[in-house]
Amino acid sequence: MNKQQLFENIKRKKSFLCVGLDTDIKKIPQHLLKEDDPIFAFNKAIIDATADLCIAYKPNLAFYESMGVKGWIAFEKTVQYIKKNYPDQFIIADAKRGDIGNTSAMYARTFFDELDIDSVTVAPYMGEDSVTPFLSYKGKWVILLALTSNKGSHDFQLTEDANGERLFEKVLRKSQAWGGDDSMMYVVGATQGRAFEDIRRIVPNHFLLVPGVGAQGGSLEEVCKYGMNGTCGLIVNSSRGIIYADNGEKFAESARIAAQEVQKQMEEQLKAIIK
Amino acid sequence: MNKQQLFENIKRKKSFLCVGLDTDIKKIPQHLLKEDDPIFAFNKAIIDATADLCIAYKPNLAFYESMGVKGWIAFEKTVQYIKKNYPDQFIIADAKRGDIGNTSAMYARTFFDELDIDSVTVAPYMGEDSVTPFLSYKGKWVILLALTSNKGSHDFQLTEDANGERLFEKVLRKSQAWGGDDSMMYVVGATQGRAFEDIRRIVPNHFLLVPGVGAQGGSLEEVCKYGMNGTCGLIVNSSRGIIYADNGEKFAESARIAAQEVQKQMEEQLKAIIK
Repeated sequence: MNKQQLFENIKRKKSFLCVGLDTDIKKIPQHLLKEDDPIFAFNKAIIDATADLCIAYKPNLAFYESMGVKGWIAFEKTVQYIKKNYPDQFIIADAKRGDIGNTSAMYARTFFDELDIDSVTVAPYMGEDSVTPFLSYKGKWVILLALTSNKGSHDFQLTEDANGERLFEKVLRKSQAWGGDDSMMYVVGATQGRAFEDIRRIVPNHFLLVPGVGAQGGSLEEVCKYGMNGTCGLIVNSSRGIIYADNGEKFAESARIAAQEVQKQMEEQLKAIIK
Repeated sequence: MNKQQLFENIKRKKSFLCVGLDTDIKKIPQHLLKEDDPIFAFNKAIIDATADLCIAYKPNLAFYESMGVKGWIAFEKTVQYIKKNYPDQFIIADAKRGDIGNTSAMYARTFFDELDIDSVTVAPYMGEDSVTPFLSYKGKWVILLALTSNKGSHDFQLTEDANGERLFEKVLRKSQAWGGDDSMMYVVGATQGRAFEDIRRIVPNHFLLVPGVGAQGGSLEEVCKYGMNGTCGLIVNSSRGIIYADNGEKFAESARIAAQEVQKQMEEQLKAIIK
């Protein structure tokens, strides 16, 4: 999927919501445990209930890996289900990978070749040759960690160098030499508020993947105020706030209601750029 | 496994070699492809041929994930095979994970609870709460990326802050507040030469996991000269140089010969600290 197609989907659905499929066997409704594949059954119901309200799904690999082989099967089935039934969805493998060149190339093969996923999150610590193998797949995206939503983001990402440039700013600046706004996005936590202004000075045109609205406490309004650009430029993720809105029989309906609420707020915010 | 046990193994085997199981279906001997599980068949043969010469095995997850479900099964079988047949081996899941707290906790559950692996490599970019969930498992280890072996290590890891502290030094310094030398190690590439001196000033007693000897061009002698401490303090990894020493029928024997060569060099280096 290219940038223009993504923006078209956002305009059409009046939404830039990404639903995070952080599916934990210990948190899903009890009645699903009798299913053959409870994780997939949960995801399928959530996807069917929310697909018209969001433009992306983001399974976080940690949740699937923690189940071993069964988890990996559920992950693959989930990706295939989305691709088959909702081909306009942008799929993000939230994997935060990054290794030496030949190893990153293996990860790229997994996500882009084998699974045909649209994008993968990548950690920048190991530098250029850990990122570029992901960029050699046309139409696929790297989503590079820049300024994350968690408390630990302060430990290293905000460190200023001798010229006053913070590490996340250096990541944004240097990585632009590796790929443009048609193949790279950046992770910026919704909890980072005004930092979006600084980020937009460096990457005015890139899409940003924004986790941290909802359970982590970020404000959608603030994110839009400082982070939205002419092609929206934002994919805002909510995981727990939507998928665990309710853990009874009606979990999917409750997830839909929660997603609808976010979508309505997004529709309002989009008025700033869509006539 | 604790630090003392690890050092006992090193003394007994006169080796601090870790064999990297970067097993790529495209590189293993052709005749194995007729096996039910070629990846596991390859690993089993390599392990049986090298177990008395090394103290650790390091499967890199990328190589297994690239095979999807089959790869994950081969990974689990490999871990179980080592644990059952060579329980004195230190197993490193080279995963380079790191995510917000609740997600890192899921990864920790996978590697430590489900698979009972000794250690996992973790990327520091997201800071304290992305690392500490791995540290709550007694007897298990976090191996944090500090100064990696690849060219891209220069992009961010060497950035100096206003006080002249480089990012990898900050990672070493700050992370000592999270866990001690009985639960944390650091990745330092063999290609980094004299930087081992600077590193030993900050973490004199920690074990370092050292990739980059062999295919990547690092020197074992130099690593030992600047990096060895009183309890060895080094686990030196070789992957391609050993496991792909030969891709014919005698691949396992050739791997043994390659491992033996490294072990002999290590025995020589260990004379500096073992009488």
